[in-house]
Amino acid sequence: MLDQSTICAISTSPGTGALAVVRLSGSDAIAIAGSIFQSPKEGKKLEGQAANTMHFGKIVSNGQVIDEVVVGLFRAPHSFTGEDIVEISCHGSVFIQQKLLEILVGQGARLARPGEFTQRAFLNGKMDLSQAEAVADVIASSNAAAHKLALNQMRGGFSSEIGELRARLLHFTAMVELELDFAEEDVEFADRTELRKLADKVEKLLSKLKDSFQLGNAIKNGIPVAIVGETNVGKSTLLNALLNEDKAIVSEIHGTTRDVIEDVVNIHGTAFRFFDTAGLRETIDHIESLGIERTWHKLSEATVVLLVVDTQNPYPVVKSRIDMIRKRMTEGQQLIIVANKIDAGNPETIGSLEQLVLENNEKRVFMAAREKRNLNELIDLMISAVNTDKISQEDVIVTNARHYENLKNAHEAIVRVLQGLDTGLTGDFLSQDIRECLHYLGNITGEVSTHEVLGHIFKNFCIGK
Amino acid sequence: MLDQSTICAISTSPGTGALAVVRLSGSDAIAIAGSIFQSPKEGKKLEGQAANTMHFGKIVSNGQVIDEVVVGLFRAPHSFTGEDIVEISCHGSVFIQQKLLEILVGQGARLARPGEFTQRAFLNGKMDLSQAEAVADVIASSNAAAHKLALNQMRGGFSSEIGELRARLLHFTAMVELELDFAEEDVEFADRTELRKLADKVEKLLSKLKDSFQLGNAIKNGIPVAIVGETNVGKSTLLNALLNEDKAIVSEIHGTTRDVIEDVVNIHGTAFRFFDTAGLRETIDHIESLGIERTWHKLSEATVVLLVVDTQNPYPVVKSRIDMIRKRMTEGQQLIIVANKIDAGNPETIGSLEQLVLENNEKRVFMAAREKRNLNELIDLMISAVNTDKISQEDVIVTNARHYENLKNAHEAIVRVLQGLDTGLTGDFLSQDIRECLHYLGNITGEVSTHEVLGHIFKNFCIGK
Repeated sequence: MLDQSTICAISTSPGTGALAVVRLSGSDAIAIAGSIFQSPKEGKKLEGQAANTMHFGKIVSNGQVIDEVVVGLFRAPHSFTGEDIVEISCHGSVFIQQKLLEILVGQGARLARPGEFTQRAFLNGKMDLSQAEAVADVIASSNAAAHKLALNQMRGGFSSEIGELRARLLHFTAMVELELDFAEEDVEFADRTELRKLADKVEKLLSKLKDSFQLGNAIKNGIPVAIVGETNVGKSTLLNALLNEDKAIVSEIHGTTRDVIEDVVNIHGTAFRFFDTAGLRETIDHIESLGIERTWHKLSEATVVLLVVDTQNPYPVVKSRIDMIRKRMTEGQQLIIVANKIDAGNPETIGSLEQLVLENNEKRVFMAAREKRNLNELIDLMISAVNTDKISQEDVIVTNARHYENLKNAHEAIVRVLQGLDTGLTGDFLSQDIRECLHYLGNITGEVSTHEVLGHIFKNFCIGK
Repeated sequence: MLDQSTICAISTSPGTGALAVVRLSGSDAIAIAGSIFQSPKEGKKLEGQAANTMHFGKIVSNGQVIDEVVVGLFRAPHSFTGEDIVEISCHGSVFIQQKLLEILVGQGARLARPGEFTQRAFLNGKMDLSQAEAVADVIASSNAAAHKLALNQMRGGFSSEIGELRARLLHFTAMVELELDFAEEDVEFADRTELRKLADKVEKLLSKLKDSFQLGNAIKNGIPVAIVGETNVGKSTLLNALLNEDKAIVSEIHGTTRDVIEDVVNIHGTAFRFFDTAGLRETIDHIESLGIERTWHKLSEATVVLLVVDTQNPYPVVKSRIDMIRKRMTEGQQLIIVANKIDAGNPETIGSLEQLVLENNEKRVFMAAREKRNLNELIDLMISAVNTDKISQEDVIVTNARHYENLKNAHEAIVRVLQGLDTGLTGDFLSQDIRECLHYLGNITGEVSTHEVLGHIFKNFCIGK
């Protein structure tokens, strides 16, 4: 499976910059780079240089100087890919970058496929599959919370826990299978009490990891926030105020259009994904219509619900809206009542509302969205509602849908193991369920992985990584 | 003038990539990088590491791991800027790049101004001003010819010639000025015959360099090509065929719109800048109109003129167009007659045309622009007409308008020196003209340069270089 060819790619962001880095990896990396590199020092050859050193010189091809560069050498196995790596740091013109690639290919390197450097790091045992996947997430992460999770995963936080449990499960399944060989003798190599303890522990961990996916996914793709309320209470004004809060870093997600993705904004390092809902008045009028179904569906997907009410309205109207939404809220969802138009609000409504939320221990902000008054207070409430800043570097949170699927399947298998232990299932059935659990766990870290799975994972990487 | 602060910038192209490089330069560069760098090797500090080495580790700020990076160290004076330099090669997410800058600034670095790294290289004597300017040209060059010229200049081809002559002129002016001190005694320290020889040599060189600017500028900004001909002979079809030839590398020049810049296309490593002219028929009808003035003006700016004629027309019509354009051509301009619509052409016209160009030793191509038949032959003719591939790495060609202005002024001064020598001008006047020549030459290499000039030059650089 290991491809021995030497690969090359531009590893820095495409386009013109002060400098660009062209990277080579493979057993011929140093020889290929050496064949076009000329040091100003007489007789100095790249091939003889020590690992982790940098060398100034010219790139020369057919007697033409292409650029003055700094070449960095890494030697196998102490490199990112585990192979010899050469990084050529050249002037960042697009022309030079392309020319360099052309020359390297002429000297026997081949253009790297997307993610091929990281794939080699995985295949050479420098990292497991979940770490390799996290490399792409680290590069793609555009906010502090997503960055932190991706970096944790890349550094192996996830893998070590799973790896350890997997080793212990493997031991048990071996013992159980040994019993099958001695079926006549009715021995028990695998202590059932110990196995139960371990399976319990695995079940709890998998359950925790599985559940963390909702948050992980939200952090990676933006915490889903639904803004609901009657028409004309200021929902759009509020949305615009929030979107403008940090315009410079409104995320662009490639390959999707704004119609589909809703608006994602980084606010103080956390990405929020806002989506529109139909005004509640319309949906009340046509209680059976598709419109309200869609609103309730959106609401059910939200982690944070901003219910906007107009403090100019009489209190009973406001309260009926709040009650209506409250009934729809499920566990884990956070409701924030946005009491809008406070500058022109009805004092009685405001007072009664304040009593209501106090009584119910709910989150509320009194604000004037048009003037952005108290907008910061709302933002603080939203951030504390999702609490992403409390995620420590040690927390393991699943952000990857592929991992989630495998965790779900592994969890189902371990639940069957537990049930089997309860009902005194025979060793061969137990073993089958443990093996299934092991298989799915191995999928995550890449101990079990097919060519297709690998191809699928790495094809979404950028070139040069 | 030398600013001692440590500066930092993202040196790679902005945006997301597999990796990005953040660069620090200044006396505190290593200490600042060291304060946030943690090696996996116990007790290993960045500060103690040798020059030109690379080190794997983590960037840690406030107890949070920001990224796993490779840090490269260069030590003064053996670095690009002549100062200590640290290059942090991090994962190329925009978030990490920004965060790194933020942390470095927090540790006492300051954000670099555009071109500030190169400016420091100049101020620290690592390169002269014309070399420093060429760094920006190397980065900006988008075709092989412009790249070659910029690289020559960056590598000092230009400076050494000027520097040597300047040193010899300086010697003479000192001798001439010494004579002034001994005016009573009528001595002649500066041998007038030698001075004349030198001034002659300087004049010839400056004249050659000055004249090279037209080609240099054309190579840098695209060889100007005018496409002229009657309406409906296929001018637009030809232009489109040429523009489509290598669509992927049609230049984008920032800050200008297509309406203004005309179309620039790289064809086989040479940039051609095409401009439209009004169809000749209209201009003949309104012989006094502005339209024809503009066409003639455009024609006069072109290095290559493509005269498109329709071989379906009777020969006398075709010949009258050719005669009309020929009269307008000036020395140094290249005419290529494009005999179009050859597939449906009039045999007599084609035959007579062939005789005409043969007789006049002119360049012509018979083609069918719509079907792109013989388009490659036209391209070969255009490339051989400008001959940029013949430029050797040793040729010094001026591409910079600032250099051109100074060369022109220096040339005028040296011409006055020669005239002064002819007319037996006294030493003090001679000295004044030599000094003026020296001043303008010094402007080019930066031996004479004001803060304003430097500021103006480097502000057009990209950040991080």
